[in-house]
Amino acid sequence: MVAPETTFAFLYDELEARDATGFVHVGGRFDDTLRYLTRFSGPEERYAFVFVGGDAVLCAPSGFERQAKREFAGDYVYTPDDLRADTPGGRAVEVLEAYDADGTLLVPQAVPHDAAVRLERAGFALESTDVVARERVVKDPEEIEALRKAQAAAAAGMRRAETVLAAADARGDGDALRFEGERLTTTSLRREVDAALVQEGATPRENTVVAAGGACTDRHFRGDVPVRSGETVVVDVSPRGPHGYHGALTRTFVVDSEGGWERRAFLAVESAQQAGLDELAGGADASLVHEETAAEIGAYGFPAGYGDTGFTHGAGYGVGVSRRENPRLPSDARLEPGTVLAVEPGVYDPAEGGVRLGDLVVVTDEGFEYLREYPREFTPRA
Amino acid sequence: MVAPETTFAFLYDELEARDATGFVHVGGRFDDTLRYLTRFSGPEERYAFVFVGGDAVLCAPSGFERQAKREFAGDYVYTPDDLRADTPGGRAVEVLEAYDADGTLLVPQAVPHDAAVRLERAGFALESTDVVARERVVKDPEEIEALRKAQAAAAAGMRRAETVLAAADARGDGDALRFEGERLTTTSLRREVDAALVQEGATPRENTVVAAGGACTDRHFRGDVPVRSGETVVVDVSPRGPHGYHGALTRTFVVDSEGGWERRAFLAVESAQQAGLDELAGGADASLVHEETAAEIGAYGFPAGYGDTGFTHGAGYGVGVSRRENPRLPSDARLEPGTVLAVEPGVYDPAEGGVRLGDLVVVTDEGFEYLREYPREFTPRA
Repeated sequence: MVAPETTFAFLYDELEARDATGFVHVGGRFDDTLRYLTRFSGPEERYAFVFVGGDAVLCAPSGFERQAKREFAGDYVYTPDDLRADTPGGRAVEVLEAYDADGTLLVPQAVPHDAAVRLERAGFALESTDVVARERVVKDPEEIEALRKAQAAAAAGMRRAETVLAAADARGDGDALRFEGERLTTTSLRREVDAALVQEGATPRENTVVAAGGACTDRHFRGDVPVRSGETVVVDVSPRGPHGYHGALTRTFVVDSEGGWERRAFLAVESAQQAGLDELAGGADASLVHEETAAEIGAYGFPAGYGDTGFTHGAGYGVGVSRRENPRLPSDARLEPGTVLAVEPGVYDPAEGGVRLGDLVVVTDEGFEYLREYPREFTPRA
Repeated sequence: MVAPETTFAFLYDELEARDATGFVHVGGRFDDTLRYLTRFSGPEERYAFVFVGGDAVLCAPSGFERQAKREFAGDYVYTPDDLRADTPGGRAVEVLEAYDADGTLLVPQAVPHDAAVRLERAGFALESTDVVARERVVKDPEEIEALRKAQAAAAAGMRRAETVLAAADARGDGDALRFEGERLTTTSLRREVDAALVQEGATPRENTVVAAGGACTDRHFRGDVPVRSGETVVVDVSPRGPHGYHGALTRTFVVDSEGGWERRAFLAVESAQQAGLDELAGGADASLVHEETAAEIGAYGFPAGYGDTGFTHGAGYGVGVSRRENPRLPSDARLEPGTVLAVEPGVYDPAEGGVRLGDLVVVTDEGFEYLREYPREFTPRA
C-alpha cells in the first residue's frame, strides 16, 4: 500500500488568509497533530515542525536523522551538528530566522507553553489555529486504505476473542469459563486479542477493552475479572496500524445465554446502530445521527441519557491518526464525504452488564461504506 | 504486586519553597508527567491535574469518572455533571476558585499554551518548575517492582527472538533465513517479539526495534529487510508494563557467524557495557560512566564519536514512566541510589552492521543490580 502523505497547501492557504508568516508546532511522538503533519513516528522527546516560506521543515532530534529522512513528508530535515542542547522552540526560531521570517506565527492551541514563550521572545506574535484538526476530518484514499488496514487487524483480534469464547466451557467451575485448562478472565482474553493485533502488524496501545458482567458498565475497563457464562462480554478493539491510523471495532458476546436482559439489550443496540448508520450521508447532521440512535434505544424501553443506566454516551466519533477525533456524534458538525466514523452505541445496567456494538465506516455522498464488515453475533462463533 | 503510588509531599514542599499557591498540569494519556502524578491511564483527550490546599485533584473527562476513581492516586476526582464543553484549563480554574486560590501557580514547562493563557486570564501568575522530573529520578520499591515486571516481559520477548533465530535456517534460499516455511524478515521477527510482550501483559508501543545487517546502523529502524545468516541482528525491546513503567533490553545475535567484524564488535560492546556498569554507584558521575564505556570501545579499535561509524550515541539513560528520562549518560548528573538506568552502548559500521547490548539496572550505594539478568549470547540459543 501507498503510505499516506501530507500536502501542505492547506497550511499555505491558512497563512495567506490570516496574513501570517509561518506555522510552528512542538511535541513528542504521541502528539497526533505532529504525526499527521510530519508522518515521523519519532521519539518521546519533543521536536519541532516549522512551515515557512512554503517549506515544511522537521527539526529532528539528535540520533533520529535517518528515521526522520525516511519518514518525513515535507521538504527539509534540520539536524544541526552541534550538540548544544537547545530546546525545540529554539530550533524552530533558528529555522524561522534562516527564512528571515517575522510577524505573526500560527500555532495549535496545545503548543507547549515554553515553546510559545520562546517564539514570542524571538519577536513573533502568536495566534492559534485549528486548521490541522479541520484538515484531518476528511480522509484521502491513502488514509482510507491505512484505516482499512488497521480495521483488518481489529477484525483479526475480534475473531480471536470469538474463537476463545466459543472454545471456553464452564465444566467443573460453576459458571466461570475455562480455556485450555485455565480460568478465562478479562485479562487473559485481552492478551489473546492483543497478540492477534500484533501478529497483524498493529499495536494495541493499551486501548483494548475486555469487560464482563457488571464491569461492562465501565467503557474503559482494563481490570481483571472472571469471564462467566450467561454474562455479557464486551470486546472493544482500537489498534493503531503501522501508518499511525486507528481501527475501531466493538462486539458483545454471551456464552450460553438464557436470553433476558442481555438479549433485549443486544437487539436494541443492534437496531440503534443501524438507525445511526442509516442517517449517514454527505451533509448529514452529526447530532441527528446520535438522536436517531438514542430514539431507537428508547423504543426498546431503555433510557437514553448520561447517567449510569441505558445509553450513557454519544453514538460515535471520528477516527484517524487519533483514536478519537472530530467530528463527534453528537456535535454541530455537518458530515462530509470521506469522514471516517466509529458508530458505537451501547446499553448498560450495573445489575445486568453492558452491550456495545461499534463499526468503522466512511461517509459517502449518499450513505456510508464499512471499512471492513464483521458479523454481529450474540453467540461467539468457533 | 502493589501498584506504584505517588505521594505529593514533594509538590507541597516545592509550593512552600517558591511561595506558590498551587500546581497545575494539563495533558492527555501520553503525557508521562501526568501519568506519574495521577496514575490515571486516561483518554487521549486532555484533562487537568491540580494540586492546591494540600489536595491532589484530577479533573477527569466525561465518561472516565469510574476509571479515574479506580486509578487516581490523589484526593478528589472532579467530574462536573454539566455537559458544557469547558477546556481542561477552565476546569483547573474552577477547582482553584473552589479553594479560593490566588497568586502564583507552578506549571511544567510543557504545559499547553492555551491552558497557561487560561490560567493567566483568571489572574494567576505562572512560573515553571521541573520538580516532577526531579522527583521521578529516584524510584521507590513499588516503582522498582513495576520496572522489574516490564523487564520480565522484555526478557520474554527477547527469548522469543532468540528461539526464532535459532530455529531459522538458510537452506535453499542463499543466506536469507527462513522460519516455519516463510522468509524471515525484520518485520516478521518484530511481530513474534511483540506477540510475546503482549502475552506477558505488556504493550510494545511501537518501540520494538529489529534490525539486520546495514539497517542496524539506524538505532530506530522499523522497516522491513530480510534477516540473513552471517549478519548482525539487533533486537531492542522497550515494552511498557501495566503500571506504565518501561523495560529496556537489547541484544545482538548472529546466525552462523564466520567471525570477523561482528565478532570483534560484539566483544568490544560487551566489554564496554561492563566498563560502564562498573562505574555505577551512589554519587557516581553520569558523564564518567559514558566516558569509561567509550574508552573501552576505543581500546578495541573502534572510534567513539557522533558520526556514522563506531560508538555513535550515549551510553544510556534513565527509564521509568518515560521510556527515556533523566539522568542521561553522559550528563552533569550525580547518580543517586534508586535511579534506574538502561546501560546500552553500541558499535556501528554502515558496511558491516551494528552491535548493541543493553540492560536495565538500578543504582545502589555501592554499585548496581540488574532488574533482570539475561544472557549475552552472540549465537542465538534454541
